[in-house]
Amino acid sequence: MIVAGGSGIRMKAGLPKQFLLLGGVPVLMHTVQVFYRYDPDIQIIVVLPASQVKEWERLCLEYAFSVPHKTGIGGDSRFHSVQKNLNFVPDHCLVAVHDGVRPLVSRETIERCFSQAERYGNAVPCVEIPESMRMVFPEGNKPADRTVYRLIQTPQVFKGVLLRKAYEQSYRPEFTDDASVVECLGEKIHLVHGNPENIKITLPHDLKMAEALLGDQYHL
Amino acid sequence: MIVAGGSGIRMKAGLPKQFLLLGGVPVLMHTVQVFYRYDPDIQIIVVLPASQVKEWERLCLEYAFSVPHKTGIGGDSRFHSVQKNLNFVPDHCLVAVHDGVRPLVSRETIERCFSQAERYGNAVPCVEIPESMRMVFPEGNKPADRTVYRLIQTPQVFKGVLLRKAYEQSYRPEFTDDASVVECLGEKIHLVHGNPENIKITLPHDLKMAEALLGDQYHL
Repeated sequence: MIVAGGSGIRMKAGLPKQFLLLGGVPVLMHTVQVFYRYDPDIQIIVVLPASQVKEWERLCLEYAFSVPHKTGIGGDSRFHSVQKNLNFVPDHCLVAVHDGVRPLVSRETIERCFSQAERYGNAVPCVEIPESMRMVFPEGNKPADRTVYRLIQTPQVFKGVLLRKAYEQSYRPEFTDDASVVECLGEKIHLVHGNPENIKITLPHDLKMAEALLGDQYHL
Repeated sequence: MIVAGGSGIRMKAGLPKQFLLLGGVPVLMHTVQVFYRYDPDIQIIVVLPASQVKEWERLCLEYAFSVPHKTGIGGDSRFHSVQKNLNFVPDHCLVAVHDGVRPLVSRETIERCFSQAERYGNAVPCVEIPESMRMVFPEGNKPADRTVYRLIQTPQVFKGVLLRKAYEQSYRPEFTDDASVVECLGEKIHLVHGNPENIKITLPHDLKMAEALLGDQYHL
C-alpha cells in the first residue's frame, strides 16, 4: 500500500509532491516501480486523496505507466487513508505500507522488511542519526545522545491480520506511523536496517538530492 | 576555525573526505570559500591532521586556491584540535567553529549565528527532524516525539573568551561538539535556525547529494 498524501495539508507547492517530476517522471511512479521490480507479482494499491485520482490516471496515460496497480481513495489523515484501504488486503499475507514520496527505498530494504516481518510479525526500517542532537524545552535545551535514537522510514511491513486488527482502534494523536498503531496493541516493534538514501521528499532540496541519488539506483 | 578531520579515524576512503572533489574542487575549499564570501575580512584558520598539511598545501597550489587562511595542526580528537588552535584566537572577537565537510552552510545561517552570538554569547544552528523517531534499548524500542529534538549543525559561534575558557576543561566523552563543552561551564546554549542543506559529508551518498545542491548556492 503506497500512501500518497493524506489530506493534502502538507502540500504547499502548486503540484502535490508525489506528482513532481524526478528524472522527468512523477515521483510516485518511481516509488510504485521499485516495488514492482522487487516482485512483479506483488499486489500494489496506490492510495490518493479523492481530488487527485483523476490527475493520477491522466498522468499514467501521459507517461504510458504500465505497472499494474489499484487506486484507493484516502481519508482525512494518513491514519484514515490506511484504515479505509485495508479492506483490500487479504488476511493471510504481508502488508507493506510505504510513503509515496520515498522513491529511493532500496531493494535490500524492502527485502529485509518482508523477510523479518514474516518471522516477527512486523518489520520497520530505520537508520542511525548522523549528527549531534539536542532536546528543546520552553525553558532551554539540553544534549541528547544520538546513539540511542533512530530515524524511522518505510516500508513498514506487517502480517495482514495484525495490521487490520491494529487499525480497528480509533485514531489517537500519537499514531504518527503504522508502527505506533500496531504497538498500541501491545505488539513489540521489530526494527531493521533501512537505507540512508530512502529520504522522504518534502522540501524542494529533497527533490534535488533525490535527483542526484536516482542515477545510481534504477531508471524507469 | 574550520576543523577538517580530527585523528582521521572516521575516514575510511583512500582520500580524506575533506579532499574529495565536489563540483571538481576539494570539499574543504568550498567550505573555506563560503566564509570568505560571507566576509572577505574574516580570519580563517583551517585545522588539519599533521599528516594532511602538506597535501592541503599541494592542493591549494594545484587548484590555485587564493582565499587567505592560516593552517593549524589538529590533535588526537576534534576536542583537542579545537583546543590546540584556540591560541590563534584573540579574546575580543567571535569565534565560529565549523566542520570542514559542511560546504553547504548558507550565508543566512552564518549571518544568524554571528549576530545571535554577539547578543547571547553563543549561537548554535539546528534544524527540525523530518521523520518519525524511536529510542532503542537493549530490551526493545519505543517512539520518541521528534518535535522536541533538533539536529545540531555548525558553525557554532562563541565569544572568544568564553570558548577559550570552556576549552581549559579536560576532555570528557560527553563533549560531542563545541556547544557541549561551553555548556559544561554552566552557559545556556542559544539555538538558531540552520539550513537543511547544511549536511555533513560523511557517506558516499552525501557527496552526491551535495553535488546536486551545490549548483544553486555558489560556485568557486
